[in-house]
Amino acid sequence: MILKGNDKFISGGVCAAKGFKANGVNCGLNSDKNKNDLALIVSDTLCNTACVYTQNKVKGAPIYVTKAHLEKTGGKSRAVIANSKYANTCNADGEEKAEKMCSLAGDALGIPSDEVIVASTGVIGQVLPIEPIESGIKPLVEGLSYTGNDKAANAIMTTDTVDKQVAVEFDISGKTCRLGGMAKGSGMIHPNMATTLNFITTDVNISVDMLQKALSEVVETTYNCLSVDGDTSTNDMASVMANGLAENDEIISDNADFETFKQALYAVMMNMTRMLASDGEGATKLLECNVIGAKDFKTAKTIAKSVICSPLFKCAMFGADANWGRILCAIGYADAEFDISNVSVTLGSSKGKIQVCENGAGIAFSEEKAKEILLEDEIIIDINIGDGEGKATAWGCDLTYDYVKINGGYRS
Amino acid sequence: MILKGNDKFISGGVCAAKGFKANGVNCGLNSDKNKNDLALIVSDTLCNTACVYTQNKVKGAPIYVTKAHLEKTGGKSRAVIANSKYANTCNADGEEKAEKMCSLAGDALGIPSDEVIVASTGVIGQVLPIEPIESGIKPLVEGLSYTGNDKAANAIMTTDTVDKQVAVEFDISGKTCRLGGMAKGSGMIHPNMATTLNFITTDVNISVDMLQKALSEVVETTYNCLSVDGDTSTNDMASVMANGLAENDEIISDNADFETFKQALYAVMMNMTRMLASDGEGATKLLECNVIGAKDFKTAKTIAKSVICSPLFKCAMFGADANWGRILCAIGYADAEFDISNVSVTLGSSKGKIQVCENGAGIAFSEEKAKEILLEDEIIIDINIGDGEGKATAWGCDLTYDYVKINGGYRS
Repeated sequence: MILKGNDKFISGGVCAAKGFKANGVNCGLNSDKNKNDLALIVSDTLCNTACVYTQNKVKGAPIYVTKAHLEKTGGKSRAVIANSKYANTCNADGEEKAEKMCSLAGDALGIPSDEVIVASTGVIGQVLPIEPIESGIKPLVEGLSYTGNDKAANAIMTTDTVDKQVAVEFDISGKTCRLGGMAKGSGMIHPNMATTLNFITTDVNISVDMLQKALSEVVETTYNCLSVDGDTSTNDMASVMANGLAENDEIISDNADFETFKQALYAVMMNMTRMLASDGEGATKLLECNVIGAKDFKTAKTIAKSVICSPLFKCAMFGADANWGRILCAIGYADAEFDISNVSVTLGSSKGKIQVCENGAGIAFSEEKAKEILLEDEIIIDINIGDGEGKATAWGCDLTYDYVKINGGYRS
Repeated sequence: MILKGNDKFISGGVCAAKGFKANGVNCGLNSDKNKNDLALIVSDTLCNTACVYTQNKVKGAPIYVTKAHLEKTGGKSRAVIANSKYANTCNADGEEKAEKMCSLAGDALGIPSDEVIVASTGVIGQVLPIEPIESGIKPLVEGLSYTGNDKAANAIMTTDTVDKQVAVEFDISGKTCRLGGMAKGSGMIHPNMATTLNFITTDVNISVDMLQKALSEVVETTYNCLSVDGDTSTNDMASVMANGLAENDEIISDNADFETFKQALYAVMMNMTRMLASDGEGATKLLECNVIGAKDFKTAKTIAKSVICSPLFKCAMFGADANWGRILCAIGYADAEFDISNVSVTLGSSKGKIQVCENGAGIAFSEEKAKEILLEDEIIIDINIGDGEGKATAWGCDLTYDYVKINGGYRS
């Protein structure tokens, strides 16, 4: 996948920014010893921290514990501990176990457990065994390094087929800054506030309030515009930790530095969103739907998400079938205000573009050319509503036999 | 499938009521000569008529034409003409063709074309060829009979694997009345006002207003509680024609006779809904989700639909996996007010019932027994919200390899 939206991508993921160590181990939650299941990210110094959480009424215990910790510390944290295989959701002892994960990490690192963020992903409702985590914490902390990001990114994967890491470098008031992150997510992805598990670190000096503002704004145009299957997870969470080691003047208002920071955050989160869509359960294609000409952003977003969520359209993309009627149908049932008779639709990929619909009706096009375009693995759907300046992009993936296999075949 | 909710089911579909003839022919829209593609229903006398239509902003041309006809006649009609294979939607000449279908039928029957209801189903955006319909109208009218319901029901099928017909008999003020219908629908089913194509006939004597009131109310608890794939079609429509030949005193108010009529309408539409769900594209299982104890009907309906729409849960049912965490997840993201900590869930089928969740958390249950229950082809999900008297039932089906095959493999 080609990264978009920035000209200075770097390697390193959550370790790209100054002063962040990470590690991942297999502690025994996952019976496959070659797959890590426990991740730790630690900053050398205390971080200003922002978080967004799932809007599902059923929330994982780690969500409640992380929220409580950040409220108690006023948005300060030093570390993240996260496990895969068990969601620690809908369990009577869930919060107790999540607190225990934080105190295990805090004790081993010599920091208060309230400065630890905790997250879990995996099967809902199965009781999280704490013993493997108790015994795994020592090697996890001992193995921490400034290049441990790959091990950590591996530890949070579930049905993911590849890890997701993005990092960028940029300047703020003459200081070189870095921001990078890791994400996991493949199924149960239809974020509504945050997504899956997502951890971002940066050495930028920025206040808690402005950090939260940046995260809340960027999540709206990135993760919240993503859908793999329409299922909003119980454990979605995205956090940004900023330790200030880049030594720029602290960002405390909505100024040019804040805009620069937000651009970097957008580049990382937008590309992570693309990676999540591209690696959706069973997916063979990334679908990117750009809506322009809508009344406002909200209208554009509603329409774009309606299209990339349509099971019929997702199946058509799997079959590389230019069945544009299904796109119009999905635009039509989007809960938004617009005049369908002004709508035009163009399909594109690295093989070119082809317009299939104008003024709300089909137009003649080469089915052969359309097939060639749709056989690629990144498909762009451009929709012009012809009604204003609002625009939005949403990301999704095709619906395939393997999605059914992964989710019908065994409990994941 | 066992019919539910009434003790007097009869055969005959749209011809069950007195004075209704029907027929279906292959006029050449469908290249398979053994599959009908053009249906006609005709009443011996003028009918009071009620209709509900899709809420999709993209509407098929027949929707506009039918609406206009019923407005012009003040809710009177004599006949329905319907074709499959072409949706006649998003075509520049759509309304002209739909009007032409009505005038062809009207001329052949010797009635005004405004008294004809028209409907189409099939691929969106492909221009409807009118010649096959022009040449098919003669054999279609000549073959009309009081037992032609099977031929008509066959003509409106698309990816349906079986036709859908239900009829009941009941008494109103000492007169024997009948009401029956036919429906089609297999994919692009997520009605929001009406569903797919659906035609109901009755010999009950009832005013246009009360007929519309009955239809609008019953559609809320039947078709609007159905989802196969979350895609609301552009051509959804349900009509009821009442010719009054049962000679009961005309129903003109919300009295006991009206209640009896509504019960009959509910029995037919509810069972048609179950048939539509059961024959969802690629489906192997009918899912029936009963929510009780909600604040109100709307809350109960929102929760029930959220569960039967969840792709992850639908896949789990295909795999006969009692993955109740996905049910709780789908309850949790339903856009409704309730306290998740009071929720309980029970799974059932003809093999028995098993509770899997209490007070919003999992409880111990026999996975073996659960598997036995879930291997059946009608699965009941009982959810108690523990918060009031509101209740609703929603119907859906599992998500299978064949859904992907049907919709990814060719243009349907």
